[in-house]
Amino acid sequence: MNKTTPAIKQDIKVSVDAIVFGYNQENGISVLLIKRKIDPFADQWALPGGFVHNEESLEEAVARELKEEAGVSINYLEQLFTFGKPDRDPRTRIISVAYFGLVKSADFSLFASTDASEAAWFNIYELPPLAFDHQEIVGKAIARLRAKITYEPIGFELLDARFVFSDLEQLYMKLLGHNIDRRNFKRKVMSLGLVIELDEKAPSIGAGRPGNLYSFDYEKYKQLKVNGFDLNKLL
Amino acid sequence: MNKTTPAIKQDIKVSVDAIVFGYNQENGISVLLIKRKIDPFADQWALPGGFVHNEESLEEAVARELKEEAGVSINYLEQLFTFGKPDRDPRTRIISVAYFGLVKSADFSLFASTDASEAAWFNIYELPPLAFDHQEIVGKAIARLRAKITYEPIGFELLDARFVFSDLEQLYMKLLGHNIDRRNFKRKVMSLGLVIELDEKAPSIGAGRPGNLYSFDYEKYKQLKVNGFDLNKLL
Repeated sequence: MNKTTPAIKQDIKVSVDAIVFGYNQENGISVLLIKRKIDPFADQWALPGGFVHNEESLEEAVARELKEEAGVSINYLEQLFTFGKPDRDPRTRIISVAYFGLVKSADFSLFASTDASEAAWFNIYELPPLAFDHQEIVGKAIARLRAKITYEPIGFELLDARFVFSDLEQLYMKLLGHNIDRRNFKRKVMSLGLVIELDEKAPSIGAGRPGNLYSFDYEKYKQLKVNGFDLNKLL
Repeated sequence: MNKTTPAIKQDIKVSVDAIVFGYNQENGISVLLIKRKIDPFADQWALPGGFVHNEESLEEAVARELKEEAGVSINYLEQLFTFGKPDRDPRTRIISVAYFGLVKSADFSLFASTDASEAAWFNIYELPPLAFDHQEIVGKAIARLRAKITYEPIGFELLDARFVFSDLEQLYMKLLGHNIDRRNFKRKVMSLGLVIELDEKAPSIGAGRPGNLYSFDYEKYKQLKVNGFDLNKLL
């Protein structure tokens, strides 16, 4: 019996793409885009990304592309989905492994180079036309982010170390794109035991009453993250 | 300015793998494996899978491989994760897009062919040594399945059309691998409004009291699935 693998003739390339969401308390959620220098889709906006090099992991590839095309160092992205429709790229068949993450946009200065002529943040409600199937990829990433925040408390690292509760409400409303039942939200968040009410008031702004300050318990968060937040949800 | 894509020399192949979990009320959760006919890892057990053909989608590739190697037709698998470590295959670099699903194992007869000499179900607690990184892939699929059932009611299609409540408890305990708080579980499941208590008793078996029969509201399930089960979890 012939026990060697039959030769395969496969013409498929592998790329990675990054969906980096940036949070900003005034402007809400934006996504990092680059303007392509080269064809296909030259001069159009697209997600940062590119071909995987032979020796690097997928995570290394996406970190390298973000550095090269947008000048940012982000190493903690999560795999979103692999897009593999045969005709998604006009050159040849390219499947793309997409990674996403959420950062505080103010922490990063953008600097375009290599295949990109510009890099910029775009509000998720005001996206320009995107190259390839990147519109679909961004849509899927937004859906995943929204699903994720309903079963895992994320995004607290985007707030200041001490915050007023409305900052957290704002973050969640911006992420979800709609208003929330604030009372119910507060009750549920506080019941997780991750947010601590401090014996301190925020400085009063204008005529409003000064709000209580809160902080986030990162140690407890890490512990719950390992053990799983979800286990007591339905069961 | 040169606007064409620089030539890339990329030696990476793309494959798909399937993690098909089978449920059986007596034996619990098993996974479908095939015995490889060819090197590498000839005569070892592995997940069904193989190289993606140039013209087929990733979903078509995984359905084809399942048909070829195990004789089963399963078209409703969900993408799990893409495994891309540079050294995961001894031949050349191969990244694998893994798909998973949960079926009633009794509904399928297995028939190995092409690259597989055997196909069989193995209990998830009694897996043989697996080829490549398939142990890691199965582990990730089990973790995903367990996380999923805590925020989405799945698996009801594995039960009979009318079932006693303990059947559902059994399914969840087998999926989770541990006992559950039955009272709390019943309260939460019933509050979703997806399970209907029928005005009917199950046939009495032995000395036990006959249990009430329940059915599952598939229409409501589909509706909730579209709108998202999660939206009211934290928010």
